[in-house]
Amino acid sequence: SSKLAPVYSLRPLQLSDYKAGFLDVLKDLTTVGDITEERFTEQFEYMRARQGEYFVIVIEKVATGEVVGVGTLLVERKFIHECGLVGHIEDIAVAKSEQGKKLGIKIIGALDFIGKKIGCYKNILDCSPHNEQFYVKCGYSNAGFEMTKRF
Amino acid sequence: SSKLAPVYSLRPLQLSDYKAGFLDVLKDLTTVGDITEERFTEQFEYMRARQGEYFVIVIEKVATGEVVGVGTLLVERKFIHECGLVGHIEDIAVAKSEQGKKLGIKIIGALDFIGKKIGCYKNILDCSPHNEQFYVKCGYSNAGFEMTKRF
Ligand SMILES: CC(=O)N[C@@H]1[C@@H](O)[C@H](O)[C@@H](COP(=O)(O)O)O[C@@H]1O
Ligand SMILES: CC(=O)N[C@@H]1[C@@H](O)[C@H](O)[C@@H](COP(=O)(O)O)O[C@@H]1O
Repeated sequence: SSKLAPVYSLRPLQLSDYKAGFLDVLKDLTTVGDITEERFTEQFEYMRARQGEYFVIVIEKVATGEVVGVGTLLVERKFIHECGLVGHIEDIAVAKSEQGKKLGIKIIGALDFIGKKIGCYKNILDCSPHNEQFYVKCGYSNAGFEMTKRF
Repeated sequence: SSKLAPVYSLRPLQLSDYKAGFLDVLKDLTTVGDITEERFTEQFEYMRARQGEYFVIVIEKVATGEVVGVGTLLVERKFIHECGLVGHIEDIAVAKSEQGKKLGIKIIGALDFIGKKIGCYKNILDCSPHNEQFYVKCGYSNAGFEMTKRF
């Protein structure tokens, strides 16, 4: 019996993703700016050194090797909730060309799996009202407002 | 010339704050649960080991030595915004008996000072609609929704 090759692979960020379009996917979300491979590597190593704190995942399109989806879970340690953990879902983006294929929901599902597995009592995220319905589909509920001060 | 003694002191969290009511202040915000001094110390040391990541501050009432206000800034490293930093303001609470004395605004001001100083491009926080006006007074603007999934 034969098997169909997978179209997408969901995996942790790796150093070679600098050349596979990781930053380009983020440009769809907001300002990224110029980041050299050296700077990218430094930030990657900062996160890797912090075991259990930063989980950056990507969806790779297997046929081409390009990164087409990204997401991060930052795990915060608190005193409340018996020194509980909270997962912060951050920087979710899917390449324009791959939207409408449910990749966003796959990314959130993977980050929820990680958050639950490592013992977070909740995952939270901030979004514009425009994206609320997407996160409701992912099983999230509106819990209040995000407030910001830019420096 | 004589000076008036200060009534309050704003300073970093220290180990002896376990006995000075740090956790009691947090109970006004949400569930805290039972936390032994050993567990508190462990969490404190986790945060202290992460230089530049967790800034937990308290307001002490000088006459009695009790903690009457608390707040945390968690600094996140990102890829977006040229590998920018975002400050997450968390777990802000003021003892019931000391409310209405502008201590909350002092805590936020101190965490904004830290965030700006270390180079965050913004500070963010989540709050209930009920607290929105307080944060507007602190110079914050509504930026969207907080979405939550509890495990
Ligand atoms: C769930 C999700 O992906 N939320 C993102 C957040 O993670 C990101 O940091 C921010 C950047 O916006 P900014 O460029 O205005 O700071 O946008 C959205 O709120
Ligand atoms: C600005 C501020 O202090 N926001 C707090 C947040 O830091 C805290 O973690 C949460 C606890 O709520 P929970 O017990 O329902 O998780 O309440 C509020 O959103």
